[in-house]
Amino acid sequence: MLDGFLTESILGKGIDAGLLEVAVHDLRAWTTDKHRTADDRPFGGGAGMVLKPEPVFAAIEQLQTPGCRRIYLTPDGVPLSPALAQDLSRQQHIIFLSGHYEGIDQRIRDHLIDQEISIGDYVLTNGTLAAAVVIDALGRFIPGVLGEEKSLTHESFTGKLLDFPQYTRPAEFRGMTVPKVLLSGDHGKIEKWRHARQVEKTQQVRPDLLKQTT
Amino acid sequence: MLDGFLTESILGKGIDAGLLEVAVHDLRAWTTDKHRTADDRPFGGGAGMVLKPEPVFAAIEQLQTPGCRRIYLTPDGVPLSPALAQDLSRQQHIIFLSGHYEGIDQRIRDHLIDQEISIGDYVLTNGTLAAAVVIDALGRFIPGVLGEEKSLTHESFTGKLLDFPQYTRPAEFRGMTVPKVLLSGDHGKIEKWRHARQVEKTQQVRPDLLKQTT
Repeated sequence: MLDGFLTESILGKGIDAGLLEVAVHDLRAWTTDKHRTADDRPFGGGAGMVLKPEPVFAAIEQLQTPGCRRIYLTPDGVPLSPALAQDLSRQQHIIFLSGHYEGIDQRIRDHLIDQEISIGDYVLTNGTLAAAVVIDALGRFIPGVLGEEKSLTHESFTGKLLDFPQYTRPAEFRGMTVPKVLLSGDHGKIEKWRHARQVEKTQQVRPDLLKQTT
Repeated sequence: MLDGFLTESILGKGIDAGLLEVAVHDLRAWTTDKHRTADDRPFGGGAGMVLKPEPVFAAIEQLQTPGCRRIYLTPDGVPLSPALAQDLSRQQHIIFLSGHYEGIDQRIRDHLIDQEISIGDYVLTNGTLAAAVVIDALGRFIPGVLGEEKSLTHESFTGKLLDFPQYTRPAEFRGMTVPKVLLSGDHGKIEKWRHARQVEKTQQVRPDLLKQTT
């Protein structure tokens, strides 16, 4: 499932360049019965299947290294943020556990997992996509992964404001023009205009971000 | 980049079964110069490259159908939620525009895009992964995509509470036991216990969700 993501992306280039390494493991390799059963029905009833403790403990105990961080991807977790992504980018080794099922046995979460992370307030069919999102978000903070020496400071969520509008050539397209200030060459004025647009957009779309700052 | 996601997932099975259809397009197909340039430097200065209006207008005008929804994936957008995913699952045709660049020309957003969606408050190298997340989240609401007739009501974010802990066999694993109530067979008691755990976990991890409800 992650093949395309790990080869065709900016992250794929970082992997090629040896800046980070990603290995994908199939939990079924750590099952011991002939049907390679990794899940079972929940105690107490309910729909769906729950990931069993045995293969997960066996897998993580084999794969973990001293000091590595063991992360479970779940909508119940702490929301992914740029600060968290940056923190993760500094780790030597991370194990991501992703479940395909209704959930995982709580004993895994209580005794084996260091951190639970959510990529957003919605449910996916599968935690693998969430792992890809976290890897991509943290990859951006690994020096050299972003091809050009791009400033990471001037983008969404620094200072809790959304981005300003961007324009490129042509200056006029089908009668739609670029704001004159951007063509003025007056950098002070441009800076002010951009900041005003950021505040305006944040107030419109995400007033909650402004509340967090104050 | 999406090949694995579109074939190896639960969503891939839904596509095989004809329940939904996903086509991936390369914007460069709508560029007209010999270098197939889709981006250019931003007016007013700044790092990064901005997606140009011409190829995007040409692509979307060719691909769109009457009443289709044209969505741009951006951290500036409205946060993806289960309600939004369900709404999207009822659309006949959606076009997702994902940018690899610093941003896209604002004229695209102002004149061509119906809805801007964010999958979370963080930045990715690439909107394609965000599109995959939205497709996965909406795919769950398309009847038949989730293999078993699983209840969508008993999971994270219904009622704005996080999930209760799940346990499966064995009832004891390395001395770690399952809460006795779950083995009691008393469904009223189990229901109460689960609800109490949901409230407890939500207070601990996501008190903001409780504030939203009241």
